[in-house]
Amino acid sequence: MRLGTLRVGASSTDGPAGRTTVAVRVDDETAVEIGDAADVGALLADPLWRARAAAADGPRHALADLEPRAWAPPVLRPSKIVCVGLNYRNHILEMGRELPAFPTLFAKYPEALVGPYDPIVLPAHAADAVDWEGEVAVVVGAPARRLDEAAARDAIAGYAVLNDVTMRDYQYRTAQWLQGKTFEATTPFGPWLTVDQPLTGELRTVVDDEQVQHTRVDDMVFGPAALVAYVSQILTLHPGDVIATGTPGGVGHARTPPRYLRPGNRLTTTVTGLGELRNDVVAEA
Amino acid sequence: MRLGTLRVGASSTDGPAGRTTVAVRVDDETAVEIGDAADVGALLADPLWRARAAAADGPRHALADLEPRAWAPPVLRPSKIVCVGLNYRNHILEMGRELPAFPTLFAKYPEALVGPYDPIVLPAHAADAVDWEGEVAVVVGAPARRLDEAAARDAIAGYAVLNDVTMRDYQYRTAQWLQGKTFEATTPFGPWLTVDQPLTGELRTVVDDEQVQHTRVDDMVFGPAALVAYVSQILTLHPGDVIATGTPGGVGHARTPPRYLRPGNRLTTTVTGLGELRNDVVAEA
Repeated sequence: MRLGTLRVGASSTDGPAGRTTVAVRVDDETAVEIGDAADVGALLADPLWRARAAAADGPRHALADLEPRAWAPPVLRPSKIVCVGLNYRNHILEMGRELPAFPTLFAKYPEALVGPYDPIVLPAHAADAVDWEGEVAVVVGAPARRLDEAAARDAIAGYAVLNDVTMRDYQYRTAQWLQGKTFEATTPFGPWLTVDQPLTGELRTVVDDEQVQHTRVDDMVFGPAALVAYVSQILTLHPGDVIATGTPGGVGHARTPPRYLRPGNRLTTTVTGLGELRNDVVAEA
Repeated sequence: MRLGTLRVGASSTDGPAGRTTVAVRVDDETAVEIGDAADVGALLADPLWRARAAAADGPRHALADLEPRAWAPPVLRPSKIVCVGLNYRNHILEMGRELPAFPTLFAKYPEALVGPYDPIVLPAHAADAVDWEGEVAVVVGAPARRLDEAAARDAIAGYAVLNDVTMRDYQYRTAQWLQGKTFEATTPFGPWLTVDQPLTGELRTVVDDEQVQHTRVDDMVFGPAALVAYVSQILTLHPGDVIATGTPGGVGHARTPPRYLRPGNRLTTTVTGLGELRNDVVAEA
């Protein structure tokens, strides 16, 4: 089952602000509205969300008729977005480092999110070192507090694609990465949440026509259930909360010379079975 | 004017969960309920919050009759808590470092907050290196996006006291501090928001009877308005959002040998003119 959030309230394409949204079940050819849930986050807050989504029989939208910008981030405002640093085994080993004993965690605030096909607008004052970080996002489906890994697995609602777009200059202004990780409206997320399906396959990040990142997603040091279990020792994860599970090698900052996103680029982030983000990079007006 | 949040729904003292709360104006001898605002965060979301609070004439509670645990964090669930690293001039200079060009920012999730007189329960698995960090908290009173310092000053609703209680072992497990900074229900905040009063005076942290931190609060490298302006270049600050402005020297981790909080300690954090947090440190049951 796939669950998404559609912007249905207006035909403007000038961003999510003020547009009415609705949670939908994404079937093969149609998106079916799920009662009065305004987004997948609101749906997941209902403990009966699986049955409610499966039984939904609301207004239908033919997928072929939807404009791309109709797709919002599946969870519009997660109460928490927890991001994970270096977490791909191959990449760590090829850099000659040891595998970490603990996951590196940092935060992103919900204002950073944009929809799966929204443009990424480079802020005029922070446009010089904007980099890609293709990732798998775990979305929490039940309150999670001090869970072991088996229980944590059951608290996962599903997976989506996220690109942890990063302002490298701001990230490295100080020792703490937060300020480079949370610029307003720069992190694409979606296109929908895929539930009840094991996480397998491959992650690919492509800039224009060049593949810049590629990994098997089962190569994480700390997999989704381990991450939920770990974070749940620290604080409660709530339905709709997101864990961005880290990016593999191939970021632009690590190249010689570095390569960053420029206006006119198209950033494509794909995970087998989860779908694809397509984001045009544009200069601020 | 002072604005607080009272737990009024039940007489139990077992924590904020499930207790009904209400925003109050804290006068000299009474707390006056402010209409139907459930907390100061909900009040600040109303652009007319100042007038509404000043005019409030709801049910009154004699301050002398309130049990300490009746006081909740003034903003129960800020949409963002932005924390600032090393930000006191004297302390940086005495350590022989140069003043930083940019503020060090990191995050804390709202689940970390407790009321001003709630106990700090040491989690059994993270009880060994729990440290104090007395701070001034800035609370945002209007949407703030790309403001200069003068406009940022107007977007500040007021100030409160916060202790950024930190699990040093978790903080230093990796290069990113988040996981040591955001343990559930360990960050006291309050006792209320003081508005329309310049930030002056002194910050003191006391463990039992020993003063462990002491500074003038006008000694920050990046003052409240500069911090709001800086963060607003990155993303939108919303009413009720909190910026914790950093701690001065004197933390327990920097002592030889290090000193940490133990069950039975009382942690007292005071800022002249803003009030006092008093938190008993207890072992997990």
